Amino acid sequence: MTNRYSLAVLPGDGIGPEVVDCALQVLDAAEARYGFATDRTEIAAGAQHYLATGELFAEVEDALRSHEAILFGSMGDPAVTPGILERGFILEMRQRFQQAANVRPVRLYPGVPTPIAGLTPDRCEMVIVRENTEGAYVGRGSTVHAGTPNTVAMQESLNTRAGIERVVDFAFRLALGRRKKLTLCHKTNILVAAGQLWQEVVTDLAARYPEVETDYVHVDAMCFHLPLTPERFDVVVTDNLFGDIITDLGAVIQGGLGVATSANLNLDGTAPSMFEAIHGSAPDIAGKGWANPSGAILSLALLLGHLGEGDAARAVEAATVQVLGELPALAGAEMGMSTSEVGARIAASVRDGVP
Amino acid sequence: MTNRYSLAVLPGDGIGPEVVDCALQVLDAAEARYGFATDRTEIAAGAQHYLATGELFAEVEDALRSHEAILFGSMGDPAVTPGILERGFILEMRQRFQQAANVRPVRLYPGVPTPIAGLTPDRCEMVIVRENTEGAYVGRGSTVHAGTPNTVAMQESLNTRAGIERVVDFAFRLALGRRKKLTLCHKTNILVAAGQLWQEVVTDLAARYPEVETDYVHVDAMCFHLPLTPERFDVVVTDNLFGDIITDLGAVIQGGLGVATSANLNLDGTAPSMFEAIHGSAPDIAGKGWANPSGAILSLALLLGHLGEGDAARAVEAATVQVLGELPALAGAEMGMSTSEVGARIAASVRDGVP
Ligand SMILES: CC(C)[C@H](C(=O)O)[C@@H](O)C(=O)O
Ligand SMILES: CC(C)[C@H](C(=O)O)[C@@H](O)C(=O)O
Repeated sequence: MTNRYSLAVLPGDGIGPEVVDCALQVLDAAEARYGFATDRTEIAAGAQHYLATGELFAEVEDALRSHEAILFGSMGDPAVTPGILERGFILEMRQRFQQAANVRPVRLYPGVPTPIAGLTPDRCEMVIVRENTEGAYVGRGSTVHAGTPNTVAMQESLNTRAGIERVVDFAFRLALGRRKKLTLCHKTNILVAAGQLWQEVVTDLAARYPEVETDYVHVDAMCFHLPLTPERFDVVVTDNLFGDIITDLGAVIQGGLGVATSANLNLDGTAPSMFEAIHGSAPDIAGKGWANPSGAILSLALLLGHLGEGDAARAVEAATVQVLGELPALAGAEMGMSTSEVGARIAASVRDGVP
Repeated sequence: MTNRYSLAVLPGDGIGPEVVDCALQVLDAAEARYGFATDRTEIAAGAQHYLATGELFAEVEDALRSHEAILFGSMGDPAVTPGILERGFILEMRQRFQQAANVRPVRLYPGVPTPIAGLTPDRCEMVIVRENTEGAYVGRGSTVHAGTPNTVAMQESLNTRAGIERVVDFAFRLALGRRKKLTLCHKTNILVAAGQLWQEVVTDLAARYPEVETDYVHVDAMCFHLPLTPERFDVVVTDNLFGDIITDLGAVIQGGLGVATSANLNLDGTAPSMFEAIHGSAPDIAGKGWANPSGAILSLALLLGHLGEGDAARAVEAATVQVLGELPALAGAEMGMSTSEVGARIAASVRDGVP
């Protein structure tokens, strides 16, 4: 019997289709070698699609929902008003599919240069777990006396115990299978109500996971510790807005958006999880073969791990890391290979078995 | 006739008194050389004072208010519950004295190593201007159903046109005397109401400062640009919470909290401005002579510039930069000199005139 999974593929805009194409080639190789299969449905969405049809998330929700996981390329085009796709697609998907945890590994891959002087791969091996549905992302804001000198703009952050609990519990479980350390990142001295609730949940759940050591770092101090003492962190759990900010810093440390990936996990099995490279659609280099597909391929590795194909996941990751280490530059003409050549090389390495 | 200024000196806790002591020695030297004078009043406040008396900002408000500027050391002690001093002193002062702009220069000083590989001083010469009285710092939060599974914690960010305008106007004027570039940092695609108001104010004021070029960067993307392409920025203006976060990243780039300084400026002359090093009270090394007084001395330079003693300000800064470049390590036993020796060296250099 062969394991079969149903996959929604959402290439999107710009370099999205090129890098997703590479990821699918690598997936073919992984299926051939590890003996599982996927049924794939490509779904049109993104800036181009929106400009042509006016459709955002609502129109593809049902099509996406029937799959076990979503492989996502990238979205965005200068012709679409900023905020439209973010709120009308990305945030809608996170909310409607209750993708409660946004999981971003921060690791140094050998051969990928970090801009942090003296940082070595052994000192940087963490996962940032970001609450992905609430906080300041609930979209509650209002403006009073608009257009007058006394305008007031209010913006609300809503934090529920249920929302925090599920992501903190997930983070504890993740830590249990790793170095058993969980760090809460917040700004409890200023955002007192929200901060107290976050701290309370961490303290309460810590009692259920006595093997896991917990600590706390303010979000501003995190900007210090993340680049300078990353060895201090195993699993970091944080709120939606702080997670948005510190994971970009995490990506800097890793050597750039090109190799950074994220999983938007639905934790209760009611809807699919989504896997994506963190880089944008880079319309300026689309079609040139200059994009590095490693981010997309590493997000495929996260997807395979999530489906339970752990061996395939590890092989895809190892092959990507190996090829990354051989590239003279991470992207552009200087990469020495085209996007599809990099993809083919990683696929071949997965098919043949990595040394 | 000699210019005379009245100065409140607030050494605070931990290493605060040692480094402020050095700054005052340097001030003596600057007065001797540049022919101005200060009347100084030392004011007891901080963690130790709070533990002994229960007094926070309210009790020293009048004493502080009668001065033209405040030189601040640092506050904090593990024995004081986190949040008490932050909210009861620091934030109270910013609010009650309407210190509307928190100004933090981000520069590389020659000889102070930056952790960012390949970054050179000519590429990093910016000032971050943080709104300092409102946004998420207004202290408006509430909790519903506390202690139950359905707890909700709400946290509000309040942004007024008046509050934003004064700090953005200040930032434009600052840019006018520099490279004439102003960047707004926010998260307008998510925090729509607040973001629109910020963007609107920047757009409106830009019409008054046609020589200043403006642009916009999301706070998450700022984590990328700040360390990797700092040459892109001249003056960055941002909200209270984002400013708290990105200025710590700015301090990382500069080589650490030891050399980072900030000015909390009252912009309407109704109350004193406050000048401080960004480092904490470091109780673990207090009294050992291991603290580097450079941050405090550079904050004195900001204070002198604010009072209008530009020549003295430049001399203090130049002397500090020179001595910084001679230290084998930035702090600790390896600094090669004690705190007071570093202070004396900088003072001597100011008195004798820096080469
Ligand atoms: C595109 C945007 C809505 C999104 C966010 O703010 O969450 C992005 O920055 C991210 O981190 O996934
Ligand atoms: C001490 C704390 C209240 C303060 C802040 O959050 O503003 C500090 O981090 C700062 O940046 O000055």
